[in-house]
Amino acid sequence: MTIDELSRLGAGWLDGTGEAGDVVISSRVRLARNLADVPFSHQADDAQNASMVDLVLNAGQNSTQLSKAWFFDTGDSEMSDRQVLMERHLISPTLVKRGNHGGVLVGEDERFSVMINEEDHLRLQAVVSGFQPLSAWELINSIDDEFSKSFSYAFDDEWGYLTACPTNVGTGLRASLLMHLPGLVLVQSIEQVLRGVGQVGLAVRGYYGEGSEVVGNLFQISNQTTLGPSEMDIIENLQKVARQVMDYEKDARERMVKDAQAQLEDKIWRAYGLLQTARVISAQEFMNLASAVRLGVGMGILDSPEPALLNRLMIAVQPAHIKRFAGQPLEADDRDVWRATMVRERLGESDSSN
Amino acid sequence: MTIDELSRLGAGWLDGTGEAGDVVISSRVRLARNLADVPFSHQADDAQNASMVDLVLNAGQNSTQLSKAWFFDTGDSEMSDRQVLMERHLISPTLVKRGNHGGVLVGEDERFSVMINEEDHLRLQAVVSGFQPLSAWELINSIDDEFSKSFSYAFDDEWGYLTACPTNVGTGLRASLLMHLPGLVLVQSIEQVLRGVGQVGLAVRGYYGEGSEVVGNLFQISNQTTLGPSEMDIIENLQKVARQVMDYEKDARERMVKDAQAQLEDKIWRAYGLLQTARVISAQEFMNLASAVRLGVGMGILDSPEPALLNRLMIAVQPAHIKRFAGQPLEADDRDVWRATMVRERLGESDSSN
Repeated sequence: MTIDELSRLGAGWLDGTGEAGDVVISSRVRLARNLADVPFSHQADDAQNASMVDLVLNAGQNSTQLSKAWFFDTGDSEMSDRQVLMERHLISPTLVKRGNHGGVLVGEDERFSVMINEEDHLRLQAVVSGFQPLSAWELINSIDDEFSKSFSYAFDDEWGYLTACPTNVGTGLRASLLMHLPGLVLVQSIEQVLRGVGQVGLAVRGYYGEGSEVVGNLFQISNQTTLGPSEMDIIENLQKVARQVMDYEKDARERMVKDAQAQLEDKIWRAYGLLQTARVISAQEFMNLASAVRLGVGMGILDSPEPALLNRLMIAVQPAHIKRFAGQPLEADDRDVWRATMVRERLGESDSSN
Repeated sequence: MTIDELSRLGAGWLDGTGEAGDVVISSRVRLARNLADVPFSHQADDAQNASMVDLVLNAGQNSTQLSKAWFFDTGDSEMSDRQVLMERHLISPTLVKRGNHGGVLVGEDERFSVMINEEDHLRLQAVVSGFQPLSAWELINSIDDEFSKSFSYAFDDEWGYLTACPTNVGTGLRASLLMHLPGLVLVQSIEQVLRGVGQVGLAVRGYYGEGSEVVGNLFQISNQTTLGPSEMDIIENLQKVARQVMDYEKDARERMVKDAQAQLEDKIWRAYGLLQTARVISAQEFMNLASAVRLGVGMGILDSPEPALLNRLMIAVQPAHIKRFAGQPLEADDRDVWRATMVRERLGESDSSN
């Protein structure tokens, strides 16, 4: 699998299936793990970090699921390759920057991935489409079980799994949901709802990375605490809170239909019209228009496009992916033109298949 | 012909034919005429004004062209009927307000009209599509000739035709072109060009009536002076200046293609997308989007819709016409919804016929 081939794929977690797929785009669970008796990656020397990559790859050979995984060596790749991996949520910005003596194992359809030598020796991650954090947990737990046969993990009876950063110690587990909440944004209840989510111990952030602005009405909700509650407690608490948020979103959508149906339909249809016709479009504008279209499909106002197509475009509109699509280096201005071309083509194919 | 039937028609001057139809929507010539020995309409009493209507209708019976004309009595019609006539440029706001003892004779396809008892006893008007003020002049001159067999016009050897307002005295002729100048607006040269037009003795105003704001990048250019130059001088001067403006517009369009082709195409395609998808649209927004689409068709960026369709919509999106389309009284909010529906329907029909 080359990065180029990877950049053209869809990824399983984008297929729009799973419970409540119109509100919960994806469910993600990751585990932070470190090997006993080896310094944490940032304290290890180059030789130790290099041998960690080999260790993990060898261990993978003994695993049913990992032996078939693709490996991407971040040390032996160009910046633009690493950016493709980041845009697909397979590696972190940290690993994009550093690169050397690191990499990622990626399971078929990108259902799971194992980042090597990021902050921790291992970051195991599973992602599934829709509202199914339990499935993601079960998948990554099985990968973790396979690894644990090959390694002795850094584990303390009192503290649990030891991690490079104390905020991950204990279960090392972070479960998150990527939620699409345009109704709450439009009726201006989003801040209140998210404040409530924060008060019950969950973290909320906008779709785009660390502390950046929210685009496309997408919010990531995840557990804050890794130490204390069990893995199942964490998952169940997230599920419980998310169901409440989903109810609020449903109420908000019903309220909009009741109070301003024509304006709502207008907003949705115009967004669809613009995506089908624009010749120049920024990633941010795409995300915001796609949000309106996704809302329209979720509410039955639009028949197409499939949510899976919108999900895949959400990944494909990013800079490193656009560059692959164009097959050439691009200035930012050209990128907006190529992005518009790609969006029109994909939506056009979707239309003709209906 | 009922007002309802009329409201569904296209009108010949909207058919998009004629020279330079992508820049000059229509050419219009009107003549102000008054009968000798009858007080001007605003000085006449009701009986005199009523008999003027009869006089004109009887005179029309002796004319080949006028005997087939439809007559709409503004005294015997509802406000909303008169508004339809005004939106079609067949009667003036003055006659909409006053109504009684007035009316309009309308030739087939609305090529010409004769307003009775507006400011002057007669206002004869011809409108043709595209850049052909001479054709409009010839048409209305022939109607004028026919009338002059039945009437003795108020005419002074020194002053020419006498009119209620001194600004019309002499030829009584106002020739005007409705020009679509989006290129000059977009490259921000419009003010300079229009100032130049003003300096050579022509008047410029935005599309919507008296001193209102300009919508849809439409400008009406007409002669200021009615006294002194001959009819042919007036027409020829207008033609000469308009050709210069058309050249400037062409240059502006070429400059945009050279400097910002992607942005131009984006603007045009987005406008077309919005017209095809909007569920709520104001008349002003329609005019502005239609301007971009018209520019796109004129420049070969879009294949459809036909300029004739855009021209007809320009009339049909107005309030009194929308009300006829809906077949019921409408609040302003509902009007915007019906307008969007109508625009989508007409554009949809246009699309499928391509």
